[in-house]
Amino acid sequence: MKSPDAIRRLVKAFSRLPGIGEKTATRLAYFMINAPDVLSEELAGSLLDVQRDIRLCDQCCSFTDTETCRTCSDDTRDRSIICVVDSVQGQLAIEATGEYRGGYHVLHGVLSPLDGIGPEELRIGSLIKRLKYSVEELIIAVTPTVEGEATAIYLQRICAPLGLRVTRLASGIPMGADLEFTDPLTLSRAIEGRTVFN
Amino acid sequence: MKSPDAIRRLVKAFSRLPGIGEKTATRLAYFMINAPDVLSEELAGSLLDVQRDIRLCDQCCSFTDTETCRTCSDDTRDRSIICVVDSVQGQLAIEATGEYRGGYHVLHGVLSPLDGIGPEELRIGSLIKRLKYSVEELIIAVTPTVEGEATAIYLQRICAPLGLRVTRLASGIPMGADLEFTDPLTLSRAIEGRTVFN
Repeated sequence: MKSPDAIRRLVKAFSRLPGIGEKTATRLAYFMINAPDVLSEELAGSLLDVQRDIRLCDQCCSFTDTETCRTCSDDTRDRSIICVVDSVQGQLAIEATGEYRGGYHVLHGVLSPLDGIGPEELRIGSLIKRLKYSVEELIIAVTPTVEGEATAIYLQRICAPLGLRVTRLASGIPMGADLEFTDPLTLSRAIEGRTVFN
Repeated sequence: MKSPDAIRRLVKAFSRLPGIGEKTATRLAYFMINAPDVLSEELAGSLLDVQRDIRLCDQCCSFTDTETCRTCSDDTRDRSIICVVDSVQGQLAIEATGEYRGGYHVLHGVLSPLDGIGPEELRIGSLIKRLKYSVEELIIAVTPTVEGEATAIYLQRICAPLGLRVTRLASGIPMGADLEFTDPLTLSRAIEGRTVFN
């Protein structure tokens, strides 16, 4: 029995999502067929709305539905600090701590020469432009993978001559983790970056 | 930082899907924002197409984009046997075996008085109507849960007086399973339904 075309296309569309194989895609498709129409309309509508409305902020390159995003337009934010992240998800994670009140800059990726991603493919040019206006500190908060580290070193090198303070997030043992199960690289970073215990 | 409205609506729409929590929904939403436009269009388009095109077959109540589904219109199918399933997914599973060449009837649910699902809420009326036309065997293939069993017994009782053969799928040990880890109910069904070994 061949399923109707529309169903097969829906299964195929769902299976393009990350982490969703054909079995799950089939389950999602049949869920949608059985669900009230309003659920399909809401999902389809918001997919198209996001595509139409969401663009990159003209300053920090985060996602926004206005020209300048809410964070960049917020006058209570400290404009002398910029935190560089590789993705909007990274920005959301930092915002969720409630600890940081400065600005952001989203690169939308990390350097990865093998995938053809060089400095021109990232939002580094617009970052350098922003650094010329009374920015005192640049916090590098890209994901600490091999590519992320390379990106951090690259940023540090091009920002150092601009005379501003370049910092990075502390690397170390996550809260609640067991020393026994911490990988050697993390542990050596934790020793290297040890702080005075007052 | 509040995400733009369109993004929050998309996350909410994704999180309504079964097995998808807020974290996964957020990951899917950002994947879609970063993905080529054609992916969003394909998913949105097929959701709306399914809603517009898919209806129930006027005979077996399976999903179809024509009045009578492909299986019911197929002249090579044996019309003297009807296999009753509770969902189209069940029908697809049986079709995947390639063993069965009869017809189907999809109930779209099982009896569940606690959830307010009685015989009127299932496609039982249209099944009874079909049984009056030269049907010789009815195979009950609803999922063997408590509600499924109740549904099977109900169907058996109303079909018995019609003078046709009512059968059900064999219950027993799945192929490759270990006796040690087979639950007692399945095992007692397997003993009860033991067959002559030729």
